[in-house]
Amino acid sequence: MLIQRVEKLRKILQEKSLDGFLVSNFFNILYLTGFKTLTENEREAWMLVTKNHIYLFTDSRYININSKSEARNPKQIQNNNYKTKLITPEKGLIKHLQEIVEEEKIQRLGFEGDDLKVNELQKMKTFLTNVELISLEKLIIKIREIKDEEEISNLRTACKIADQCLEEIVKTIKPGTSEKEIAFRIEFWLKEKGYDLSFYPIIAIDKNSAVPHYDTRAGNDEKVKKNSIILIDYGAKFEDYHSDTTRMIFVGKPTSEMINTYKILLNAQEKTIERLKTDNNPVSVDQFCRQQLTSHYSLATNHSSYSHSTGHGVGLRIHEFPKISFTSTDVLLLNQVVTIEPGVYINNKWGMRIEDTVLIKEKGEIEVLTKFSKKLLIISNY
Amino acid sequence: MLIQRVEKLRKILQEKSLDGFLVSNFFNILYLTGFKTLTENEREAWMLVTKNHIYLFTDSRYININSKSEARNPKQIQNNNYKTKLITPEKGLIKHLQEIVEEEKIQRLGFEGDDLKVNELQKMKTFLTNVELISLEKLIIKIREIKDEEEISNLRTACKIADQCLEEIVKTIKPGTSEKEIAFRIEFWLKEKGYDLSFYPIIAIDKNSAVPHYDTRAGNDEKVKKNSIILIDYGAKFEDYHSDTTRMIFVGKPTSEMINTYKILLNAQEKTIERLKTDNNPVSVDQFCRQQLTSHYSLATNHSSYSHSTGHGVGLRIHEFPKISFTSTDVLLLNQVVTIEPGVYINNKWGMRIEDTVLIKEKGEIEVLTKFSKKLLIISNY
Repeated sequence: MLIQRVEKLRKILQEKSLDGFLVSNFFNILYLTGFKTLTENEREAWMLVTKNHIYLFTDSRYININSKSEARNPKQIQNNNYKTKLITPEKGLIKHLQEIVEEEKIQRLGFEGDDLKVNELQKMKTFLTNVELISLEKLIIKIREIKDEEEISNLRTACKIADQCLEEIVKTIKPGTSEKEIAFRIEFWLKEKGYDLSFYPIIAIDKNSAVPHYDTRAGNDEKVKKNSIILIDYGAKFEDYHSDTTRMIFVGKPTSEMINTYKILLNAQEKTIERLKTDNNPVSVDQFCRQQLTSHYSLATNHSSYSHSTGHGVGLRIHEFPKISFTSTDVLLLNQVVTIEPGVYINNKWGMRIEDTVLIKEKGEIEVLTKFSKKLLIISNY
Repeated sequence: MLIQRVEKLRKILQEKSLDGFLVSNFFNILYLTGFKTLTENEREAWMLVTKNHIYLFTDSRYININSKSEARNPKQIQNNNYKTKLITPEKGLIKHLQEIVEEEKIQRLGFEGDDLKVNELQKMKTFLTNVELISLEKLIIKIREIKDEEEISNLRTACKIADQCLEEIVKTIKPGTSEKEIAFRIEFWLKEKGYDLSFYPIIAIDKNSAVPHYDTRAGNDEKVKKNSIILIDYGAKFEDYHSDTTRMIFVGKPTSEMINTYKILLNAQEKTIERLKTDNNPVSVDQFCRQQLTSHYSLATNHSSYSHSTGHGVGLRIHEFPKISFTSTDVLLLNQVVTIEPGVYINNKWGMRIEDTVLIKEKGEIEVLTKFSKKLLIISNY
């Protein structure tokens, strides 16, 4: 599976007449090799793909010199041409690159221009004088937008775990429960079982739900009241893959305006998911979703359309390609996993968002991976 | 307090004849302005320091256009010359910079060469054609190595919380408890109280403790047995500031080799902390600590000196300056907060590390911020 991902990259390198490509991004290294280090931002590993070899460079923390296997991560790529190179204070990445460039006669070497730091490039320019260094952007992240079987399986599991989690958490919500308490319960439920959060949950009660990107950690920790509206935007992480769901919970007696808005929003969200079956243009999907809302609801007088995009890809990161927005240049394709998440926000009053994670299958088919019910959910027996 | 940090930066800019400095790093923006965004890696904010102004650039998620205060973070710098600029799809960072460069006649503009991406610089070069762009490294992180009063207060609290946490967690450890369970209990204890982990704890039992940077998440989840040795390397985060502690726990009847090694290691660690009172050279502090171990212990025959550094600064990040290692070029100074963490690792058998977070005060004084007892801790009543 992993070698097929590398081969996709190699095909692009060939088209661009590159002899090699240096991968610096933590998630791209994980995607291509299955190897990951303790931290995302400390440059503990690098990867080089050439015509015939795959090199991973890392330090003694990650290479178990006493075991028979070269590196200790059992999920790493299995390939005869995969070589692990030890980085030491005496022999850093650059010295390794100098050797390989010589051995493999590399003349044109690509790198991730959207990940490599200015000073890192400067150093490479200084020490790799006979190599043409070529900055490329979004190369691997665009390969990552199409998920393979293993990735889809992980995403499906992540969504299932998230569904189960919310089923349990909803039972614990009643007047007096605070935003941070709900967030903590979700986190605790997941971590106790060995899973993780996809991102810190957005739990927004009443007025806070009118803020599309409300930050629960920095907020006023609003409590549930007798007739509250609660927005829960959360996800589970399973084997590094993320899910993303938003659900609305009503307490006591929601107003008819709330119920009416919810119905219209749900209708728009579900019709937009349906639309993925036939429309491969994310700009038109985005527009379609907004039209569904405005045509059924007197939004024009109250407020403008929601200020965020209609959806985004999910995978090893919570925000990936394709983007489903009016500025998107992507194409919707088989085996992409995307969110559909329209919202209605009434300033200083309340807001609503409904979001699912959806797999695009063969033409005419989609699979909604997040299956938590979207029927009007009212908590009244507490 | 915050404006004094900016003034330290301005002094350096003046020395380097720079008219402005663009800050891209999440933690440096937080340090200088008190402002932080939801994620560390998504470039949701930028900062520009000029002779007369401090600019923060961010998008509508972080600027509350409906409230009287310009931005919603109450901890932000209070200064008449602090200006928040709204980033929109139509007017991004570059357009704002073009305006300011014009207005303030900026000719030489510095940027963080160890943070800015290659493609970000490329874009700046394309659109800021009359400006000389100058790459600088480690400018603000070196300012950050000296902590001010507020930072020391936060670090002291973080250490105190960590002490209390371990006191409680130790009570729950008995034969059968696994590494991940201990890690989870630490995380849960902290988060339930609204604090956070400094980093994912390293809990290493028996053979795993011989691996200096053991990864508990990726490991075999070893369980405590009747005569186990347990290494706990953990920390608490309070108001974005980190603590860092390592303690050893013995179960049942530790061998005399274990007890002897622990005593020698503790003696080396405490003498090295004492040494901080008089020695401002981290290279010699590192060497001193290793000598303390070898002179009291027949390490030469068993294994080499520990493979990591003797210590590091802590602050907004878990690893900051100064480094206390044989390659360090730093100087130990008043109001630095550093760890001292020697270890002994016997391959495939067991290992030990003892670590405290220490504040360097006026010459001849130090304050150990992590106060959890270092007396031999044996769990036998379970």
